[in-house]
Amino acid sequence: MKALVLHEANRLSIDDIEIEEQPGPDDVRIAVHTVGICGSDVHYYEFGKIGNFIVRAPMVLGHEASGTVIEAGANVKSLKPGDRVCMEPGVPDLASRATLRGIYNLDPAVRFWATPPIHGCLRETVVHPAMFTFKLPDNVGYDEGALMEPLSVGLQAATKARIRPGDTAVVSGCGTIGLVTALAARAAGCGRVIISDVIGPKLDLAASYGFRPVDLKNEDLAEVVKQETDGWGADVIFEASGNDRAVAGVFGPLCPGGTVVFIGMPVEPVAIDIVAAQAKEARMESVFRYAHQYPRAIALVASGAIDVKPLVTDRYAFADSVQAFEYAAHPEPRTVKTVIEFE
Amino acid sequence: MKALVLHEANRLSIDDIEIEEQPGPDDVRIAVHTVGICGSDVHYYEFGKIGNFIVRAPMVLGHEASGTVIEAGANVKSLKPGDRVCMEPGVPDLASRATLRGIYNLDPAVRFWATPPIHGCLRETVVHPAMFTFKLPDNVGYDEGALMEPLSVGLQAATKARIRPGDTAVVSGCGTIGLVTALAARAAGCGRVIISDVIGPKLDLAASYGFRPVDLKNEDLAEVVKQETDGWGADVIFEASGNDRAVAGVFGPLCPGGTVVFIGMPVEPVAIDIVAAQAKEARMESVFRYAHQYPRAIALVASGAIDVKPLVTDRYAFADSVQAFEYAAHPEPRTVKTVIEFE
Amino acid sequence: MKALVLHEANRLSIDDIEIEEQPGPDDVRIAVHTVGICGSDVHYYEFGKIGNFIVRAPMVLGHEASGTVIEAGANVKSLKPGDRVCMEPGVPDLASRATLRGIYNLDPAVRFWATPPIHGCLRETVVHPAMFTFKLPDNVGYDEGALMEPLSVGLQAATKARIRPGDTAVVSGCGTIGLVTALAARAAGCGRVIISDVIGPKLDLAASYGFRPVDLKNEDLAEVVKQETDGWGADVIFEASGNDRAVAGVFGPLCPGGTVVFIGMPVEPVAIDIVAAQAKEARMESVFRYAHQYPRAIALVASGAIDVKPLVTDRYAFADSVQAFEYAAHPEPRTVKTVIEFE
Amino acid sequence: MKALVLHEANRLSIDDIEIEEQPGPDDVRIAVHTVGICGSDVHYYEFGKIGNFIVRAPMVLGHEASGTVIEAGANVKSLKPGDRVCMEPGVPDLASRATLRGIYNLDPAVRFWATPPIHGCLRETVVHPAMFTFKLPDNVGYDEGALMEPLSVGLQAATKARIRPGDTAVVSGCGTIGLVTALAARAAGCGRVIISDVIGPKLDLAASYGFRPVDLKNEDLAEVVKQETDGWGADVIFEASGNDRAVAGVFGPLCPGGTVVFIGMPVEPVAIDIVAAQAKEARMESVFRYAHQYPRAIALVASGAIDVKPLVTDRYAFADSVQAFEYAAHPEPRTVKTVIEFE
Repeated sequence: MKALVLHEANRLSIDDIEIEEQPGPDDVRIAVHTVGICGSDVHYYEFGKIGNFIVRAPMVLGHEASGTVIEAGANVKSLKPGDRVCMEPGVPDLASRATLRGIYNLDPAVRFWATPPIHGCLRETVVHPAMFTFKLPDNVGYDEGALMEPLSVGLQAATKARIRPGDTAVVSGCGTIGLVTALAARAAGCGRVIISDVIGPKLDLAASYGFRPVDLKNEDLAEVVKQETDGWGADVIFEASGNDRAVAGVFGPLCPGGTVVFIGMPVEPVAIDIVAAQAKEARMESVFRYAHQYPRAIALVASGAIDVKPLVTDRYAFADSVQAFEYAAHPEPRTVKTVIEFE
Repeated sequence: MKALVLHEANRLSIDDIEIEEQPGPDDVRIAVHTVGICGSDVHYYEFGKIGNFIVRAPMVLGHEASGTVIEAGANVKSLKPGDRVCMEPGVPDLASRATLRGIYNLDPAVRFWATPPIHGCLRETVVHPAMFTFKLPDNVGYDEGALMEPLSVGLQAATKARIRPGDTAVVSGCGTIGLVTALAARAAGCGRVIISDVIGPKLDLAASYGFRPVDLKNEDLAEVVKQETDGWGADVIFEASGNDRAVAGVFGPLCPGGTVVFIGMPVEPVAIDIVAAQAKEARMESVFRYAHQYPRAIALVASGAIDVKPLVTDRYAFADSVQAFEYAAHPEPRTVKTVIEFE
Repeated sequence: MKALVLHEANRLSIDDIEIEEQPGPDDVRIAVHTVGICGSDVHYYEFGKIGNFIVRAPMVLGHEASGTVIEAGANVKSLKPGDRVCMEPGVPDLASRATLRGIYNLDPAVRFWATPPIHGCLRETVVHPAMFTFKLPDNVGYDEGALMEPLSVGLQAATKARIRPGDTAVVSGCGTIGLVTALAARAAGCGRVIISDVIGPKLDLAASYGFRPVDLKNEDLAEVVKQETDGWGADVIFEASGNDRAVAGVFGPLCPGGTVVFIGMPVEPVAIDIVAAQAKEARMESVFRYAHQYPRAIALVASGAIDVKPLVTDRYAFADSVQAFEYAAHPEPRTVKTVIEFE
Repeated sequence: MKALVLHEANRLSIDDIEIEEQPGPDDVRIAVHTVGICGSDVHYYEFGKIGNFIVRAPMVLGHEASGTVIEAGANVKSLKPGDRVCMEPGVPDLASRATLRGIYNLDPAVRFWATPPIHGCLRETVVHPAMFTFKLPDNVGYDEGALMEPLSVGLQAATKARIRPGDTAVVSGCGTIGLVTALAARAAGCGRVIISDVIGPKLDLAASYGFRPVDLKNEDLAEVVKQETDGWGADVIFEASGNDRAVAGVFGPLCPGGTVVFIGMPVEPVAIDIVAAQAKEARMESVFRYAHQYPRAIALVASGAIDVKPLVTDRYAFADSVQAFEYAAHPEPRTVKTVIEFE
């Protein structure tokens, strides 16, 4: 089949490859329809590795995907050929200690698309366990299906925040992850969402969602939050930028007894003022992908509580995948999510 | 001043009364504008008591109120004359064990409007602590201000449910409390809200909000939930009817590990199948009024996440208060909330 | 092999049976050493059923067991022949929705020893998954190994109670489950444990553990709790009796904002005063067996925090198993746990 | 009265001072008996300030105290002259936003002994609110009474950790706070407590309590934890050293989904590897003093679950207070807590 293969840093091509995959009795085979390009895909493309995960053999990219079931294993009852679906890209060991405790995202043996050496889904078909493949409701499209992946990260963050209805949230960072986190936070009960960045067009998109944008070039985040909360502070700070200064400053806008959720991944350790956290008895949560969030993401998109469609700002045909990655590596400021579509 | 006074069961009149109230330095005096009639007001009117709370001396009714500040104590910084406000009707002892633990609603010494022997707010003016008086944003009206009281009950229930975004909720009962609970549950993250009752017009109102109505005369609630959740069950059941059969049946539509919140108040003890709860390891929460919910209710109404205006179905002038209570005691099926307005 | 087989109500015998069990690569074969007799075993013995679980074919009894590994599958790394172990008696479907969420005890497909039609462990050897078989530390004996089963119930209850250190707990019922719950509650942080029953020798055993015994024939539980807590009430009530009156009375000794845990299983639905629960905003948890508790039970017994040895009051050789059950069905008041030992 | 007064850094003397304090109706006057010297007292003594808290006027030191009631206000029912008591040193504003939410320790207006400009308790008598003064049970002495203050910090940490019974805990740091945290963690349910330091005599004391000591000069903490937990990691890490390296290394010994509690206060911001936290979805809590812990500390000491007496290693008469501080500023390795006693 045709697949988008990363051979090494900066060497990407559409190749004819053979992946031997026979669906087992609990699996489905899916014709891939839409795949979103994630920052991690771009990072592998540019550097050939992320931390200890190194591309040592040609690897298919892509892990944010929707498609159509074309074959279903003998035991599969939840799905049938023709079903439009999205796929959760990580498959854990069901017998692992982490999985048995409900935190399968933390299973070190998880097989996750496009994390070396596991092939991703930018290819014509994939075989996937039915239990990690989810039917899309009629009012949910393929774009939204592909976006369930980043949205699941946002929901993982919102879930860990344990939002109480009416909370005020701050989201640092206005990229895809910042925006899906803001959407998740609002859907999860936040009465007010303040979101910060330095890129105007992204803040404009945030404003069009009804979030309060803070352009850090012109405004001080802690000061804005103070004004908006009668000096009390925000109940939850979602750190979705990974930026050193943002990470170091998370306790400034926080209320006493408030919560910080670390989603962004700073490249290096960041100097954090523990005493500032203690003065507010901050609770800090951290997020690694997600567990059990796909059905929730689908329910909230289907109900209309979350609209991810405006996040798709750029679209390429599969045949132009290399060009799509080239663009995603050097995007215009207005770009949030670039997707690749199969014909 | 003029006030609506309950002398004993079924003896209600607008009287000229004198209530000596001098605002202290931390209090405000408020001209009352709108007061909702609550089921408890009607119950006192019809029976002269609720449980051990007995009307032994003439008592002013009413506790769901909004109005306008006309005088502010010397220490009050948050409010000034002319401010449109709503008032949280219960004032606890700040030094009590419960209040110090953040659960001031459970302080046995709480003074709550229209709970004997404390006068309610169906009168021209009230004096109230500024810390339990909340300014209404410009886009929130007096009706909504009065409805913050029942909405706070709904939010207390939604908060105790600890909803995770994307949960499926069932609400039993489609009166004011059922509807505000459904609204709170959705605002707090539920992707799907199923609501049951036997009164058609109330279910129609619920449907107009986008909830899935279940007419118990025609449909089996547990069966509907089963179908809507692939057989898994609902994450949260809000029991807001107080009806014996509904209370006894709460575990049927519940998912394994799910949560039941008891809001409705059955008149008598109800036979509950503990083993059915255990088979699902149900967590059961119970709600008594609310604590810390008024600012949250206001934030969610102001943001547009919750719209309570359609709940006001009937309106009377203060001069017609006795007639309003007569109606509220024998309402048409379409009636949800009856309010009384001062000129 | 020899096994204690229940043919139907009141017909129990030691038979030679053949159970075809070949250990798979992830299983171990265990020579059974000690088996505790549980109330459910006795109930099957006397009535041939518990609720919908009916003994329709001869079934081996017993599910509280310790033993010695005699064979280990090819993949098993945690255990080897000669290891002294205890066995968690329920094995869930690893791919079920409940198991994946960490609540495998609620998986309807769980296979649990001596719950029809699954054979129990009162037989010479059993084959069991290594992941549900736990090595006993050197300072933990076979009796204690067998008692890890009821202790896991107590720990499940204590875990669900979310005890804060220094809490006051009440335990209703002084049988095996009441006592292991009291032990678990104290080990989990309760500064004071009050335990009630009507059977003097059981209360004496409780007192010897340092718990405050309340003989309900002479003392009023709510009154005792009131005195011991300056009128505030107990933080947690563990209902471990299943007795109707005890269940109905759980809210009396509870503090505002307190927690009730339902462990005992009343035969019939019990009339519960929901309004009494609401007046204290009681949280009610319910317990069905346990999940993830065996390693915790072992750790707490090994550390000396919990001593279950005094609970073993009666002991029989396997050859006298029928007599053991006869006794367990009609025990003396001093009897807590009867165990059966293989030679 | 006589008091130990700090005039400026390194200038400490016993002076005759006059503090005008008339007990109000809700206060008691207490003859001080025993006062522990805290690291913060020593820090004020040596540097005249801690962060922004600067000693600008002569200030009495001391905040860990027990004593005897000598006078009780008219409304005080819980205490009477002659009662042996300990005193919680911080008094919040009961009407503050934080206090009303149950987190009075985070009230910025709290008045805390020996935090400038509030006088401490190293003086003959103090006047204190009865609601923050707690009667000592007959089996609890004055030393233990004074130690309720640091123990409350340990319990605040153990409470925030939300320990499940049988957890494995690591405590970094073996000073007073490390040791009371270890004691609190075990009393709160930890089946195993591993504690690290570099000072031999302190580790010996820890070992005498039954904790597993790790001398960081000879052993690698993460490696020890790995061995003790079959490679899974510890459920909770209590960082009680404030040491940079210890803070930076907290995620190494942590299990997936585990919890870190920051108690120690590093002087400067510490470089923290957020990605290491995320890989385990670490939850991080932070502690600032305590709220609602005094009654819990007393209950656990009275029950025998926690024994703080061995922590008192050095004792001075009040007349020798300056010498006591001189010693506490340059203690021998074996010193944990130095106390000062009034005659």
